[in-house]
Amino acid sequence: MLHQELRFLLHHTADARSLLARDAFAHLEAADLDAILASADALAAKEFAPIAAALDHEKPRFLDGSVKTHPRLARAFDAYARGGYLATGLAHDAGGLQAPAALTTALMAIFGAACTPAAGYAFLTTAAARLIHAFGDAWQRETFLPPLREGRWTGTMCLSEPHAGSALGEVRTRAIRRDDGAYSVVGSKMWISGGDHDFADNIVHLVLARIDGGEARASGLSLLIVPKIGLDGRANDVRTIGLNDKLGHRATSNCALAFGQDTGCVGYLIGRPHEGLAVMFHMMNEARIGVGVTAAATAYAGFRYAAGYAGARIQGRNPRTGAPARIIEHADVRRMLLIQKAIAEGGLCLCLAAARLVDDANTHPDPHEAHTATRRLAVLTPLVKLWCAERGVEANSLAIQVLGGAGYVRDHPVERLFRDQRLNPIHEGANGILALDFVMRGLRRDGGAVVEGILTQLHLETADLARDTPEAAGLGEAVRIVGDALRRLAVGDGDAAQAWASPAALMTGDLLVACLWLRQMAVLAGQGDDFADGKRAAARCFLRLILPQSLAVAREILTETPPPHLTVSSSVFSA
Amino acid sequence: MLHQELRFLLHHTADARSLLARDAFAHLEAADLDAILASADALAAKEFAPIAAALDHEKPRFLDGSVKTHPRLARAFDAYARGGYLATGLAHDAGGLQAPAALTTALMAIFGAACTPAAGYAFLTTAAARLIHAFGDAWQRETFLPPLREGRWTGTMCLSEPHAGSALGEVRTRAIRRDDGAYSVVGSKMWISGGDHDFADNIVHLVLARIDGGEARASGLSLLIVPKIGLDGRANDVRTIGLNDKLGHRATSNCALAFGQDTGCVGYLIGRPHEGLAVMFHMMNEARIGVGVTAAATAYAGFRYAAGYAGARIQGRNPRTGAPARIIEHADVRRMLLIQKAIAEGGLCLCLAAARLVDDANTHPDPHEAHTATRRLAVLTPLVKLWCAERGVEANSLAIQVLGGAGYVRDHPVERLFRDQRLNPIHEGANGILALDFVMRGLRRDGGAVVEGILTQLHLETADLARDTPEAAGLGEAVRIVGDALRRLAVGDGDAAQAWASPAALMTGDLLVACLWLRQMAVLAGQGDDFADGKRAAARCFLRLILPQSLAVAREILTETPPPHLTVSSSVFSA
Repeated sequence: MLHQELRFLLHHTADARSLLARDAFAHLEAADLDAILASADALAAKEFAPIAAALDHEKPRFLDGSVKTHPRLARAFDAYARGGYLATGLAHDAGGLQAPAALTTALMAIFGAACTPAAGYAFLTTAAARLIHAFGDAWQRETFLPPLREGRWTGTMCLSEPHAGSALGEVRTRAIRRDDGAYSVVGSKMWISGGDHDFADNIVHLVLARIDGGEARASGLSLLIVPKIGLDGRANDVRTIGLNDKLGHRATSNCALAFGQDTGCVGYLIGRPHEGLAVMFHMMNEARIGVGVTAAATAYAGFRYAAGYAGARIQGRNPRTGAPARIIEHADVRRMLLIQKAIAEGGLCLCLAAARLVDDANTHPDPHEAHTATRRLAVLTPLVKLWCAERGVEANSLAIQVLGGAGYVRDHPVERLFRDQRLNPIHEGANGILALDFVMRGLRRDGGAVVEGILTQLHLETADLARDTPEAAGLGEAVRIVGDALRRLAVGDGDAAQAWASPAALMTGDLLVACLWLRQMAVLAGQGDDFADGKRAAARCFLRLILPQSLAVAREILTETPPPHLTVSSSVFSA
Repeated sequence: MLHQELRFLLHHTADARSLLARDAFAHLEAADLDAILASADALAAKEFAPIAAALDHEKPRFLDGSVKTHPRLARAFDAYARGGYLATGLAHDAGGLQAPAALTTALMAIFGAACTPAAGYAFLTTAAARLIHAFGDAWQRETFLPPLREGRWTGTMCLSEPHAGSALGEVRTRAIRRDDGAYSVVGSKMWISGGDHDFADNIVHLVLARIDGGEARASGLSLLIVPKIGLDGRANDVRTIGLNDKLGHRATSNCALAFGQDTGCVGYLIGRPHEGLAVMFHMMNEARIGVGVTAAATAYAGFRYAAGYAGARIQGRNPRTGAPARIIEHADVRRMLLIQKAIAEGGLCLCLAAARLVDDANTHPDPHEAHTATRRLAVLTPLVKLWCAERGVEANSLAIQVLGGAGYVRDHPVERLFRDQRLNPIHEGANGILALDFVMRGLRRDGGAVVEGILTQLHLETADLARDTPEAAGLGEAVRIVGDALRRLAVGDGDAAQAWASPAALMTGDLLVACLWLRQMAVLAGQGDDFADGKRAAARCFLRLILPQSLAVAREILTETPPPHLTVSSSVFSA
């Protein structure tokens, strides 16, 4: 089912065909995309979905200084690698398929819906390979790319430290240049996903550290490639010192690592000195869209399971006929399902739209359009991640509620999906930090011109659709109100913007998704089957049950009265 | 801290002193209530809070047909029983302290905040004792009350069956009258909290079953007292056939039980034949307020922990001074804390107001006032439970978010509280069922007169407070809009009411809590310390960040356009 949904979104809202007309993707046809989606869905159903419960139950263990993972994980990862999925998004000259981001994002949805924590290792490995391909020198590419691409090695991103989670300026890990040009790395890292495991021959850590001359702020950091096993085949003094016991996402080991505390740890500088954060953030747009799409996929998985359950479970009586009813016959159950559908499919659509911007930024033949896509992406990416994560938690909570007591026990996957989902507002940039990025940088980018450009496009699109879709009229008004609120936040000294950041970012995400729902409706105009009827109902649900709550936020911002959390003293919380 | 918060609410919003003037409570003085709250807080801190993590981690095990619980649970339960807390709310002639419901509800908050799942056994035991006192014959009272009151035995409520969770009309357990007047009970029950354990001498199950002549609907059921160990000291053929593995609330065993499948199971009819559900529901108001207050208390526990963490954790820089900042200095963190405070303290206040109605229904000297309280309670109780549970999940999710990655791991209690909280929208009447009860019965009760009475009181109260509290003006308008929306749902054939039930119930809960926040503000007018400042900020937070979202729901209801989930076909969910 998911690959059909993705196929619809890919072709009809992300307009994949127009992408395939470009040189970069000329080797692919529309039918290839469909076939890849279908194969991925089959592989996910065979190797990923069936192990999700066991991997959650029998979480990784920390034994004798190493992390032991579930034996079935190795098999799933191996099948994924052999299927070529690690390399789908890599460029031809990196040995990859060079598929558009719109496709690789759809693939992440498929494996994320089946078992995000198992797929996590794969996503991190591809990200490391892409980074090394983009910024590594010839030796680094030759040394590290092939084993990553083939899944013999895996990758990690080592940013946070015990005292520095969101505030990377405080990073203390150091790298000291050696005579041979390599670096000695010394420090501790925390919250490292995939930081240790036992199913690949080596792990390639990408480590943010300070080299000599690096200023004491985030922009003074450098990035180093640090293999767990050195290139001489000996341990490289990367020690796992702890394994976090998490609420969800349990199959992805999450470690505290110590570098160079004993025999010495060798790392290789990648990219230019002191530009490590820029290198890392070059990959961050796609990493964040990746978190967004796995969040949407997790919501989708919960929605599908709850819908199946509600269609089969007999309970109570039909209020009209008095006959025994499937619970889906109760309007409140359909309400819960429709909200989940509106969030999950809306989120998938948002992520594919963002991935399309990535493709436009990288491959649009018109440099002006490519530049516009780059600028919009910088503004929108935080919203994509935070929106899918926050609304995703709501959706997965509703999936539990549809099942009732059955949803609260391990017999069904919805409680696990809910726990998995709860990570997404936290990692790859906590939602609150991303919201600040949106209001303090995104809204002000190019003097507000980027946001104005987006608002203008939404205005034109809703006006255009209003001829055929009555719902578009109300949405046009929403574009106006949200736009006014955002303009208000873009001026001034930033205090109000910081205080309103999270509600304003969620509101803007709601508006974007609402407009994408309208686009889905428009595509299906006149089509009368269950697929189209369901889409229309979900669109109306979004416009009537979700978006109006955000407009209430816009109106509060427009009062210009400082919100109470801006003016309240911290001391009241200990009273 | 919690007992101080509760003392404030008990005296200033639930007006405990006026209760103590009544004959039923003449044996108590205000200072007694304060002393009991303080002692309970001390006991909860000593015996309940310290075991919460261990009880969650080392959940009950199912071994050789019996449930083994954590050894520390027995000690906590014993201390609770020895402290007399099982009997605080029991009438004098049941050997209890005969304290007002407002106090016993506050006590539930204290133990619920410390460790809800451990306290759960105690709450169920008191509920069983109260039911037997209210409906049992002399022999039943003599036989079952003392050991329940003293904590030698515990109690359960056995309603659901594997095929009948929310739909009790489908209950299949049968009870066949024997020659000695007792009954043979045969059937299976599911989702039985405290259904088996090993820390008391016996378990008293209150079992809904059908006796001969009982009609095939919920109102044809009877209630039976079924001890696990028969009064002859031999096993009574109550077999534990399964132990549910739950997302949270893990210390409370939750069992599938089989009655009379082997040697025969004896039960004793309590109350009149075929009136079992009425007997059970007589206790249901207080049980649901109990769930509401433990939900609010769980939100409160998460809030306090997050506030303490945010006040100590250094991360990032103060945006104004550039100095290292405690995270509470970031406005977005204060936003998350203030929303939690607004929900948690608002919920506690709502529950104490409902408990006050219980006391008025039971003890008001003016029969008309007592009758009014009874009718209002019938309408409001579902809202109390569903509101605290639903908003409580939001609050506990925010507590995780304040901690970031640390909130997602077992090192801190917030992830456990989040899992515990997620049960509350499900048990003791799923939120969706309660919402239906509110719109289909509550709104229409006495031709709508009960709800009109409540709305009139809210209108008068906000008008009265508007002289001193500018926030009251906007709230008066909210009372009007919500009232109009509720009136719209109260008429017609009920389809729209059923479809809007859940959003409308949450909206009405929001309005009630907003009005109670206004009352708290009014009490503290002119007081300038941190306690009062915090309350005012939380009240404004509620009025500006939460209530407006509900008013958006009211406006949607008032459009009279059927919501999309009412008209959508079930088949779209399998497309």
